Amino acid sequence: MTETSPAPSAPVKTIAFVLYQGLTPLDIVGPLQVFAALADLVPGYRTVVIGERIEPIGSDTPLSLVPSHTFAEIADPHATIVPGGLVPTLAAMADENLLGNLRETAARSQIVGSVCTGSLLLAAAGLLEGRQATTHWMYRDLLARFGATPVTRRWVEDGHFITAAGVSAGIDMALHLVGRLAGNEVARMVQLFIEYDPEPPFGPIDWTAADSGQYAPFARQLLQNALADHPALLAHLSN
Amino acid sequence: MTETSPAPSAPVKTIAFVLYQGLTPLDIVGPLQVFAALADLVPGYRTVVIGERIEPIGSDTPLSLVPSHTFAEIADPHATIVPGGLVPTLAAMADENLLGNLRETAARSQIVGSVCTGSLLLAAAGLLEGRQATTHWMYRDLLARFGATPVTRRWVEDGHFITAAGVSAGIDMALHLVGRLAGNEVARMVQLFIEYDPEPPFGPIDWTAADSGQYAPFARQLLQNALADHPALLAHLSN
Repeated sequence: MTETSPAPSAPVKTIAFVLYQGLTPLDIVGPLQVFAALADLVPGYRTVVIGERIEPIGSDTPLSLVPSHTFAEIADPHATIVPGGLVPTLAAMADENLLGNLRETAARSQIVGSVCTGSLLLAAAGLLEGRQATTHWMYRDLLARFGATPVTRRWVEDGHFITAAGVSAGIDMALHLVGRLAGNEVARMVQLFIEYDPEPPFGPIDWTAADSGQYAPFARQLLQNALADHPALLAHLSN
Repeated sequence: MTETSPAPSAPVKTIAFVLYQGLTPLDIVGPLQVFAALADLVPGYRTVVIGERIEPIGSDTPLSLVPSHTFAEIADPHATIVPGGLVPTLAAMADENLLGNLRETAARSQIVGSVCTGSLLLAAAGLLEGRQATTHWMYRDLLARFGATPVTRRWVEDGHFITAAGVSAGIDMALHLVGRLAGNEVARMVQLFIEYDPEPPFGPIDWTAADSGQYAPFARQLLQNALADHPALLAHLSN
């Protein structure tokens, strides 16, 4: 459909989205829809959703999600995107099985991305040490506890890592990545097809009013709930 | 968490999201995440995802989705939101079983909403006759074939119906609805939690460049594919 398509002989690039228990579905579905549109519009791309097992996985909404592949089935993703969530994602910072899968998949990926607190999983896996990164505004400071440098931007690139801010930021990050992979014209076509022409009815977020620390006790409480069984990690992240 | 919470004795309002084969997951997950945040932040709301059966349902991405309830289990939703999609949704305009479920659920809902081509299902069910409505830009004209008046806006309210433009427009529509239901302060808090502070990397959609009719043959072809087995409906929508 476009002159910027890769040659037919180019290998298909796989964009893998990680699914795990309790995540925030918009974190995964926002960028997935962007890359699925890319795969529909030009040749050379496919999306997959990877999890430990191919079975329904609960989210932080009543919706359950089913991956298309296991981690082991996707040997060499071009990009791997890790979504975030609230208590279950904070708890997953201590899930050595998931962190191990993330380390292995990240090592085989040209691009490793995250949305929202997904970057805390990359950080807990030791992948963001010495790198600039971002996450949901409530937990930005935690990145430093894992040796990363927290940055307040919609998305942050450092080496082959790209991390996005909270939840809906994954859409912006994914469009940026599509532009890098397939060119800006293709990215604009994807944007047109998902009709991403935002009109937040109350305007942009007023960060001067919002980022006042009033939610810090709430954020701490959720972290304590999530890591009640992992006092060492909780202490490391709390002091 | 807020002074605008309803009294504890108020009945819980159920916001129901309709799941069906082949839909575009961002159409459902965008507004679902908005209302799930509402339900988390203030008392008085819950979200459900309804389908014909509680089993994995394919989407237009590799992700499958599982509803939390059947249509029959949710007797009186406060609001029902119908997501859209491409060929499977266009085909569903001829799915009398789904249309019947939509008519019954809509008749019991205080608010009936749609995202993207979800409005074509409401229209095909006879629910938008004489009403203003919108849908994905590629299929806006089809609304008139069902007796609705197509409108070019991010979302359109007419009576207890509210229809949103394509895919990502469901987030904006949902925030507007949250403001109407729970007040603007709560809606702004929801926006903060999903960090909906859009920064489309290529700016807003340039409609003067995009809406030039170049995609009309593509849209017609998809419609023909979708309704190949329903020539009467296809003719009604094509001439």
